[in-house]
Amino acid sequence: MIQESAKKHGYSESLILNSEYFIKEDLDITHNEILEATNVSHPILKQAASYFFQQSGKKFRPMIILLLNKALQAHQQLRNGKDSELVEKESIMMRKLAEVSEIIHVSTLIHDDILDQSETRRGIKSLHMIMGNKTAVLSGDFLLARASVTLAKLGNVEAVIAISTAIEHLIYGEMLQIAKKEDNDLYDTYMQTIFFKTSSLISNSCKSVGFLTNSPNEIISAAYNFGKHLGIAYQLIDDVLDFTESGTLLGKPSMGADLRQGIATSPVLFAALKYPELEPMIRRKFSEEGDVDRAWKLVSETNAIEKTRDLAITHCKKAVSSILTLEDSPYRAALLGLILRIMERKK
Amino acid sequence: MIQESAKKHGYSESLILNSEYFIKEDLDITHNEILEATNVSHPILKQAASYFFQQSGKKFRPMIILLLNKALQAHQQLRNGKDSELVEKESIMMRKLAEVSEIIHVSTLIHDDILDQSETRRGIKSLHMIMGNKTAVLSGDFLLARASVTLAKLGNVEAVIAISTAIEHLIYGEMLQIAKKEDNDLYDTYMQTIFFKTSSLISNSCKSVGFLTNSPNEIISAAYNFGKHLGIAYQLIDDVLDFTESGTLLGKPSMGADLRQGIATSPVLFAALKYPELEPMIRRKFSEEGDVDRAWKLVSETNAIEKTRDLAITHCKKAVSSILTLEDSPYRAALLGLILRIMERKK
Repeated sequence: MIQESAKKHGYSESLILNSEYFIKEDLDITHNEILEATNVSHPILKQAASYFFQQSGKKFRPMIILLLNKALQAHQQLRNGKDSELVEKESIMMRKLAEVSEIIHVSTLIHDDILDQSETRRGIKSLHMIMGNKTAVLSGDFLLARASVTLAKLGNVEAVIAISTAIEHLIYGEMLQIAKKEDNDLYDTYMQTIFFKTSSLISNSCKSVGFLTNSPNEIISAAYNFGKHLGIAYQLIDDVLDFTESGTLLGKPSMGADLRQGIATSPVLFAALKYPELEPMIRRKFSEEGDVDRAWKLVSETNAIEKTRDLAITHCKKAVSSILTLEDSPYRAALLGLILRIMERKK
Repeated sequence: MIQESAKKHGYSESLILNSEYFIKEDLDITHNEILEATNVSHPILKQAASYFFQQSGKKFRPMIILLLNKALQAHQQLRNGKDSELVEKESIMMRKLAEVSEIIHVSTLIHDDILDQSETRRGIKSLHMIMGNKTAVLSGDFLLARASVTLAKLGNVEAVIAISTAIEHLIYGEMLQIAKKEDNDLYDTYMQTIFFKTSSLISNSCKSVGFLTNSPNEIISAAYNFGKHLGIAYQLIDDVLDFTESGTLLGKPSMGADLRQGIATSPVLFAALKYPELEPMIRRKFSEEGDVDRAWKLVSETNAIEKTRDLAITHCKKAVSSILTLEDSPYRAALLGLILRIMERKK
């Protein structure tokens, strides 16, 4: 669908599959600004920050923010014209927002790794494994605080509220994940967790792009929904990949890492609808011997992975329809291309 | 000096020694608002939050914020007149600011207790002792995030920057404290730690009161300096009390708790100027047998406690002179009384 739409509008397939094309310079500047922002005088904090940010990472959040900004600006330009000085001013703010969003993301990864006792992250050792829990807790705190200061300095109260809410959601989501799974509906709780842990930061970042470009409410709402559904789809594809891709492609030890960590993701929860014997295993977080292997087997005997992929596609379509409320532009096409890449990614 | 000044201006001694008098209602409302703000649907977070906030606590930060607001408003009223609706609107904002400041304070206490492996806090068991490290880390994160959202909703970017900076300082201060004490100047580092860990949140809260009351720059600066010196004095008196007051008055196990935790406070650092043999003990955080007793003995053989108290008085005087730039009012007198109480407190 996306490819057809792109072709219909005259954009080459290679363009929409290289979403970075328009924002490469901004992405590079953002990367350097992150290094600068986290280059503090305290040696341990500096080491902790650079440990993460020297890695290149996927920069998924900065990419979305920077592209969405260009798409919103193009939309405004086509509708009412837009002052080029303002465009430049907004672009500087967007790089800061991209920096804030990426730093927040990394700071929660650091805390999550401590809480989940993960040994690796992005293919390298987790920070707490290198520096100990104390330093890792404080480094996460510090990065979060630094991001909050940078965000506040953008001077837009609505963006501050949106991003602060996303931070609250990230923590709430982690809480849901580590909580005892007792009376709650497993699938509903999981979908809430996805929203809180992955989708909220993306959707609230997109909303903030709307605020910072002074967009009208319906465009802010479209930006938010685009980010919301894209974030959910992204996580669902992650869930699928954990069952289908082996090796260290995800920067994780290997296939089935979620299960072994006691986390029941979408495929397991779909499989549980057919095989209720999975429920008690999920509630005890696959803690008994044989649980992980048995769960793996039951998942593969159902169409649960396919159902998860279908659900991801449903959310991708919603993201597409949100973004199509914008005027057509190469940047809008690049955003559509980004959605496509998320669907087709292997890592 | 303070008592004389108060009498000279016709305020009774009992008034200035009961600084809560003017803000009792606001303090009660703030307390209830904190309970409400932290009363979340997640059972563990709710339990964690109420564990702390059901305790009455000293409410030192809310008290300063609420009184300073009244003093600044009285100052403006006397200089240029002030609309009573605006006074009411600001008072509502100040209660929110007081809530934010107290929640931030408590959230860092929770993280500090994990990092310092403290077993008790305010006379009760530390949160991580009750609920485990995971929940305690997340509860601290959550309270911080919730405070940031409440703060952002006040809609004042300068206040958001000030308080975000204070959060960054709190974490930086804890980092300084747990870092290896190698080449740095011990006394300078300690005074920096006091500023980052205690004084910055108070001074930046006071600065925010200035922003929220739309005060001119020189008044904002006076408010900041008042809070800065008050915060330093407060911590120095805390240091003295750790050497002079026994029992559980501070809600800590007993006298000398800092030393036993490996923390060298002002009296030890002053004593080290006379007895250089203390330096290696400080650097190894009193980790060898006999270190704590020996340090205690050396402190008591010097005038280090007196010198610490003198330094606290110096900072109190600076706080007094900052506050005297305001027009005279009962609230200003109450703030002077608060400074006096800090000097004379036994817990």
